[in-house]
Amino acid sequence: MSSSQIDKIVNQVFTEKALHDFYCVGETCVGWERNVLDQPNTVKKIIDKGADRIAAGIGIGEELPDRNIARMIDHTLLKPDATPDEIKVLCSEAKEYGFASVCINPVYVPLCYELLKNTPVKVCTVIGFPLGSNTTKIKRAEAEEALENGAKEIDMVINVGKLKQGEYDYIFNDINQVVLAAKNHKALCKVIIETALLTDEEKIKACLIAKKAKADFVKTSTGFSKGGATVGDVALMKYVVGSTVGVKASGGVRSTEDAKAMIEVGAERIGASASVKIVTGEKVTGGY
Amino acid sequence: MSSSQIDKIVNQVFTEKALHDFYCVGETCVGWERNVLDQPNTVKKIIDKGADRIAAGIGIGEELPDRNIARMIDHTLLKPDATPDEIKVLCSEAKEYGFASVCINPVYVPLCYELLKNTPVKVCTVIGFPLGSNTTKIKRAEAEEALENGAKEIDMVINVGKLKQGEYDYIFNDINQVVLAAKNHKALCKVIIETALLTDEEKIKACLIAKKAKADFVKTSTGFSKGGATVGDVALMKYVVGSTVGVKASGGVRSTEDAKAMIEVGAERIGASASVKIVTGEKVTGGY
Repeated sequence: MSSSQIDKIVNQVFTEKALHDFYCVGETCVGWERNVLDQPNTVKKIIDKGADRIAAGIGIGEELPDRNIARMIDHTLLKPDATPDEIKVLCSEAKEYGFASVCINPVYVPLCYELLKNTPVKVCTVIGFPLGSNTTKIKRAEAEEALENGAKEIDMVINVGKLKQGEYDYIFNDINQVVLAAKNHKALCKVIIETALLTDEEKIKACLIAKKAKADFVKTSTGFSKGGATVGDVALMKYVVGSTVGVKASGGVRSTEDAKAMIEVGAERIGASASVKIVTGEKVTGGY
Repeated sequence: MSSSQIDKIVNQVFTEKALHDFYCVGETCVGWERNVLDQPNTVKKIIDKGADRIAAGIGIGEELPDRNIARMIDHTLLKPDATPDEIKVLCSEAKEYGFASVCINPVYVPLCYELLKNTPVKVCTVIGFPLGSNTTKIKRAEAEEALENGAKEIDMVINVGKLKQGEYDYIFNDINQVVLAAKNHKALCKVIIETALLTDEEKIKACLIAKKAKADFVKTSTGFSKGGATVGDVALMKYVVGSTVGVKASGGVRSTEDAKAMIEVGAERIGASASVKIVTGEKVTGGY
């Protein structure tokens, strides 16, 4: 995909009226950068404007039962000091609550595979994580090894610096190599674009390239950068990728309310470490 | 190296009087966790007690000229949104100020190699960075590729979770595989132990295992965790590894004073992104 093609599409997206409207609260256009979680009117406006596409998602509305939320959550433990014992607890919780997957670092794929085989819980791992700044060759090799070890979902990080430099062919190939590895193993590939580091235009470009490279999902955040998922970013990403590619909201999703807000604007998957609290409705404070 | 051997050595280190004394300010023993940067008496005490070993370093005292500091600095740019253009500036500064190396993500090794060949500035890259939670096989493959691309220094991250679980043989092999790759290419290997996540006992164990695995340096921090280098940790690490293994202080070293404090207690190398400000003496505020 050439730079001019991408610029053309980005331009189309930007000028489309519905999208333009998303930027505006009353008479003032505020931009997606603002976290609209705290702005219910904006959120309502996004939902109203984007209703068609949101309906094209998995069709979960206001009466969302918490068990259905569980099936949309990647139960996540990626901190570098996570021990094998903590990973075992994670897997046990995932089985108990019926989470979609456990999302863990590559070193723990074999352990999780053993603990979760013959259950509906998938093993999800992260590739080039969290900086996305290793080479395409190593990302592919890391993905291949994880898939051979039993991973069925692969969350890879794009190279943000090269996106900013306009090296779109590089970004496409970097994603596509990991997608191809996943498809060879009938696994899903999610593409983390790290929204906190991107302008709105870059978010759109990243989503378009990920879709072109046949990713199954685009994902907001690693959880290791300066910000996580916002309702605005999820709505934007869902709008850009359409119904054939999923959106995963991750980073800072800590409560049932957070999760429902993300799902309402189009997220089909939630990445969270507070997953048990999300499905039980227990209040949490602090942390990221 | 068996667990019982390691525990025995740790015990020896802990009971050694000089090390015990480091823990004490006046009549109160405070522990290394406290950042002694702000405690000049403690720092002086460490220097007094550890004088023999510090003299075994590269012999830089209070009259340290800033140009000598430059030769000890890995000029560092590891943020995921670093662009090729920013990397070019980094290399240009490294040549101008005579830094030991540029420390960059693996994707930029070929670019830096091109820009720095025929200069004294080495290319340093990071492996399994910053979480250290990918597999040993991928760490080795990542190191091999970087070395083939021209890296002469390899800063690898240990698996903190497995250290905490007591899997010392795993830690040894994880480090040793990357060391072997480096030695095959006559390159240095530095081992990042991520001090901010470790207890004092774990710091000592990590240093002992890194030394046993033939690492050239132990390094305090990735710069992506909850804390960076402290004078106390550098002194402890230098004390444990002795004169045959270097110590690199990294994370939060932002001024000439910071750098000199680290060098005075035994650091032979400094990792910093504020390198130009360190050697020119310009004051900086904020940032990490």
